[in-house]
Amino acid sequence: MIGIEDVRIARRRLEGNAYVTPVIRSAVLDDQLGVSALLKAESLQRTGSFKFRGAYNKIAAVPADTRTRGVLAFSSGNHAQAVALAATLLGAPATIVMPADAPAVKLAGTKRYGAEIVTYDRYAEDRERIGLAIARERGLTLVRPFDDALVIAGQGTISLELVEQAGDVDALLAPVSGGGLIAGCALAIKALHPSTRVLGVEPETADDYRRSLAEDRRIAIDVPRTIADALQVTTPGELTFTINRSLLEGIVTVTDIELIEAMRFAFEQLKLVLEPGGAAALAALLSGRVEFEPGARVAVILSGANIDPARFCELLSSEGHG
Amino acid sequence: MIGIEDVRIARRRLEGNAYVTPVIRSAVLDDQLGVSALLKAESLQRTGSFKFRGAYNKIAAVPADTRTRGVLAFSSGNHAQAVALAATLLGAPATIVMPADAPAVKLAGTKRYGAEIVTYDRYAEDRERIGLAIARERGLTLVRPFDDALVIAGQGTISLELVEQAGDVDALLAPVSGGGLIAGCALAIKALHPSTRVLGVEPETADDYRRSLAEDRRIAIDVPRTIADALQVTTPGELTFTINRSLLEGIVTVTDIELIEAMRFAFEQLKLVLEPGGAAALAALLSGRVEFEPGARVAVILSGANIDPARFCELLSSEGHG
Repeated sequence: MIGIEDVRIARRRLEGNAYVTPVIRSAVLDDQLGVSALLKAESLQRTGSFKFRGAYNKIAAVPADTRTRGVLAFSSGNHAQAVALAATLLGAPATIVMPADAPAVKLAGTKRYGAEIVTYDRYAEDRERIGLAIARERGLTLVRPFDDALVIAGQGTISLELVEQAGDVDALLAPVSGGGLIAGCALAIKALHPSTRVLGVEPETADDYRRSLAEDRRIAIDVPRTIADALQVTTPGELTFTINRSLLEGIVTVTDIELIEAMRFAFEQLKLVLEPGGAAALAALLSGRVEFEPGARVAVILSGANIDPARFCELLSSEGHG
Repeated sequence: MIGIEDVRIARRRLEGNAYVTPVIRSAVLDDQLGVSALLKAESLQRTGSFKFRGAYNKIAAVPADTRTRGVLAFSSGNHAQAVALAATLLGAPATIVMPADAPAVKLAGTKRYGAEIVTYDRYAEDRERIGLAIARERGLTLVRPFDDALVIAGQGTISLELVEQAGDVDALLAPVSGGGLIAGCALAIKALHPSTRVLGVEPETADDYRRSLAEDRRIAIDVPRTIADALQVTTPGELTFTINRSLLEGIVTVTDIELIEAMRFAFEQLKLVLEPGGAAALAALLSGRVEFEPGARVAVILSGANIDPARFCELLSSEGHG
């Protein structure tokens, strides 16, 4: 099992390699909601999302002789860029398995960080089978996006930093996809301050984690329709579920419209770019769907910002016409 | 004359009231330009621009009995919001003289921070005459946007923070409108590290400061056409000119297209919202128009982010069609 000590080790590995992201305050937000919100801007992390922390911690922990053979990941999104950069910084060749029809901007971003990209036909081929075959053949280490103790410990460093920067918090809200971010954050924050409430946030159409916690078993859903492409995972991780079922108070869901409203709020009031999935925890706070004591200190993880301006503008202009 | 000690006093006044804004790094930017860029994100300052520092320092220094009578400013932009919030925090009623046809979003923003707004017809009336008459009549203290020693000292706190956060720098780039931001930053950074090069940045159509420095006298231009509404001042301040003529290496100019490119870069790579004027120093860096030694440590002030999403999207989509 993973504990706070693993997160502390991750912290030391990340020192000088990951950014210490700022905690942003907003008097407008605090006044509007009657809480004291502490917004941890992982959108400003290297590669534009928190994923860099887990990927770097994982790759740094691979023994040097294995690492130089290289690493492999399957991802079309934030994890791909995170693995590509972390591997480059650590001298490991990275191979990323991506669908051939992935957005050009994501393919380009991943290449720019120095990775080799292997594409597959997402309608005809199984990326896991292709990826594992390549990994076996070339002796590459697989870097899973969430279901890995080292990845989870890496994400947990966010809580350590947050408490150092801003002190203890009464509650923590984080987006949930595979559950690695919130698992790491929950185990670290609960170790430091056991009474902290930890709540996950999912798009309402992508509520596999909510349903799984309700039934206390891992449930799989169909690929959900949501603008939050980073939160489209269909079932909880095994390891993340074991952690989250014991530490989370629950899961809040938000609509796509609420995600867009949160992106707009971040732009107008916080002056930060957020992608839909990266705005999920803020959307949950803004929706008022979670009750807090007046003045409660609520940490909110702003988890990613990889969206191109054209898509951002399209989403913001669509709102109100829906 | 103003010195580093005035900036240190301002720093103490601002402590716990202004945000200590983060210094953002970008490996992509560094690789592209061969420098080590330190981006001071004053776009994340309270009210969305650096103006809060100067306004707060000025109003805090007014004796309490005078302050409670209130303060007055003329501005349709960032200075208005800064004075409104600083005054509210310091218990001073604020009156802001704004054109009747100012953008609704700016009127609303200024009201939200608690100011009384007096509008005038910008085609028929002289705002300075109206404002000074109200100030005299009601005993209000005028808070000038740049030509004031306390305002300049407040802006200079940016340099103190920057050096504490990131160490000495070889060069500093800042946008220039009335010249208060760069005057404060220059006098503080030169006191700490005399060899630092300080360069101002103006839109090419709004180059009153560049021309004034070239002729060594204050020149007035017509109201310039530029998308950088925050940089449309037509002549240098008297006090700022006295400081800047002795401390600045020079002024670089940038086009509106370059401002939009810098806003796009900030969105895509830095994940930060910038308004056109707030992106001017970044635009100058990206343009390659200033030569730096390889690896030079270049501080860039990202000075403001008050732009609504619709206008932002319009500007980004206009690019390439122009």
